[in-house]
Amino acid sequence: MTNAQKALQLHEEWNGKFETTPKMKIATREDLSLAYTPGVAEPCKVIAKDKEAAYKYTIKSNTIAVVSDGSAVLGLGNIGAHAAMPVMEGKAVLFKEFGGVNAVPICLDTQDTEEIIKTVVNIAPAFGGINLEDIAAPRCFEVETRLKELLDIPVFHDDQHGTAIVVLAGIINGLKVTNKKKEDVKVVVNGAGSAGVAITKLLLTYGFKNVTMCDKSGILSKASKDLNWMQESMMEVTNLEGKTGSLADALVGADVFVGVSAPNIVTADMVKTMNKDSILFAMANPTPEIMPDVAKAAGARVVGTGRSDFPNQVNNVIAFPGIFKGALEGRASQITEEMKLAAATAIADLVSDEELSDVNILPEAFDPRVADVVAKAVKDHIK
Amino acid sequence: MTNAQKALQLHEEWNGKFETTPKMKIATREDLSLAYTPGVAEPCKVIAKDKEAAYKYTIKSNTIAVVSDGSAVLGLGNIGAHAAMPVMEGKAVLFKEFGGVNAVPICLDTQDTEEIIKTVVNIAPAFGGINLEDIAAPRCFEVETRLKELLDIPVFHDDQHGTAIVVLAGIINGLKVTNKKKEDVKVVVNGAGSAGVAITKLLLTYGFKNVTMCDKSGILSKASKDLNWMQESMMEVTNLEGKTGSLADALVGADVFVGVSAPNIVTADMVKTMNKDSILFAMANPTPEIMPDVAKAAGARVVGTGRSDFPNQVNNVIAFPGIFKGALEGRASQITEEMKLAAATAIADLVSDEELSDVNILPEAFDPRVADVVAKAVKDHIK
Repeated sequence: MTNAQKALQLHEEWNGKFETTPKMKIATREDLSLAYTPGVAEPCKVIAKDKEAAYKYTIKSNTIAVVSDGSAVLGLGNIGAHAAMPVMEGKAVLFKEFGGVNAVPICLDTQDTEEIIKTVVNIAPAFGGINLEDIAAPRCFEVETRLKELLDIPVFHDDQHGTAIVVLAGIINGLKVTNKKKEDVKVVVNGAGSAGVAITKLLLTYGFKNVTMCDKSGILSKASKDLNWMQESMMEVTNLEGKTGSLADALVGADVFVGVSAPNIVTADMVKTMNKDSILFAMANPTPEIMPDVAKAAGARVVGTGRSDFPNQVNNVIAFPGIFKGALEGRASQITEEMKLAAATAIADLVSDEELSDVNILPEAFDPRVADVVAKAVKDHIK
Repeated sequence: MTNAQKALQLHEEWNGKFETTPKMKIATREDLSLAYTPGVAEPCKVIAKDKEAAYKYTIKSNTIAVVSDGSAVLGLGNIGAHAAMPVMEGKAVLFKEFGGVNAVPICLDTQDTEEIIKTVVNIAPAFGGINLEDIAAPRCFEVETRLKELLDIPVFHDDQHGTAIVVLAGIINGLKVTNKKKEDVKVVVNGAGSAGVAITKLLLTYGFKNVTMCDKSGILSKASKDLNWMQESMMEVTNLEGKTGSLADALVGADVFVGVSAPNIVTADMVKTMNKDSILFAMANPTPEIMPDVAKAAGARVVGTGRSDFPNQVNNVIAFPGIFKGALEGRASQITEEMKLAAATAIADLVSDEELSDVNILPEAFDPRVADVVAKAVKDHIK
């Protein structure tokens, strides 16, 4: 039986990947009178006077919603709300298993930006945070930005920031291995969707100076046509020399390649034009932008992918459970840039100098320390 | 420590009345590849082709949303979304404990009819049913009616129909005890909000002919002022003689009184004007419309209340868990009038002729047979 067949069979057996488990028994009239009427009126009255008390008496303290409109699901694309459910349930389960955070999948039967925003605002009272997931760019940018303004609970688009945090952690350690400095290196990010934009932003915030974005039509510049508003705004802070050309042109003399794009689009010849000790994160799934052995043979020093069967896996699960664990424990009202940077640094620091090598720049997804270390980094940066 | 103090303390200890529990362990890379990427893509692809497969592979098969706008919570009134959470969590827990149905509380940060409807439609893909709760009348009528039209999953406003089903069950058995017939008796329903309207409708559907509604200003008639659209429509089928006057006037010669109104508004003198062997359901909480001993002393034969410390408790928990259990198991697309009648009859039939008496007309809330019997009644009436 293939993995795919086995997965399908298991999904049928599970028939939903989680259940709700009451924390108390309701076996007697007294039980009923305490968990429900008339006793339940007491916490209601306290919260009616002070909304903050919801964190004391309700699931809001440790429950988030995993919200998707089903428009950009994994590599499957725009498959809609119902078909997105297995992914969102899976994500919800990972939040619990890795971070101890309860999560409820909410798949939206709309792909209209305003309706998404309104719906999430309307359902927010029950939840302590909102994890946005698999929403297509550029819609995802507006949805997240607006929700952060409208809500007083953390809103986090994992496809953007989870990926960006882990990539940054990987590059931080990649630079240690190759003895390069963030201020000096040239970075090329290929793919200008949600992940590509977020990675670029976080690298710049961290202190990288020279970042160039590319997409299918090559180097993004102010001369590029059909940029969305977010890509336009990225042109103010990237490709400062205003270069044009192809991805191959961009990679000449580059130190770091970050691919969140398509299979096999980076060739050995391109890698050969990069600087010595180049670092490549080829994260297209399941087939990377370049296979690690090909990249290595062409001179790359550090190669990471999204896959668990190669070294240096970039896996969001290193970040998102700890991010919300920390935000909820510290009652953060949002996930700030400082928290993301602190999380990336903390993840990078989990790999000791002795452990650090070309093929070991990131902690394992199952490293039991990860969620707590990330949570602490987040909590330490709550203002 | 009072019950209220104990309830508050327990709510703090629980800090949310349920948690989400994954049905699988995620301890290895293989686990991850089956419950999440890449394996999760398989059920996604199947559902993308056939939405119905969501019932096979996702929580939709056995998970409902308990939705409130916090506008009419218990006896507390319009306390808003956050303060309504303890009640909705409690309800969610009862669904699981009594019916084995997973339930997620969704408290809405809006009390606008159109926004409520839109929000529920938007979040529906994850859920197999929608239990509306504690939404003020007449908004609740429009919200439910429209959602039933818009969604292909069961929508059920428990304050209306759960109450109506249990009251009907009680009256069915009350008539057995008093040897009266539904076609002959005169019923007075006091309280013209969500429960009062739904009870009246279900009694008429069951075959009662003579029902009069009252509210604070007395008998509702076509001459009444300030009726909402639902109350207006009820005037076509109730109070057919067009009587006017007070509740006291309405009760003269009545056989059945159903109160979903306010404490102590029925006096012994009023009961004395009712027919012999009168049946009273005085369900105002926590203080009934008339205390059972007072009613009995004045000649009432059967008296029920909402309280667990008196005989004949009318408790919705007898109905709602089984209603959704049956609807989900049978994949009903809605809860029909036939299902409600069947549920009421099934509940009534649970009290055997030997057990039946003035003080034992309804099964206990903790009777372990109830949910399955109600579920079966619902399933047997799916078209």
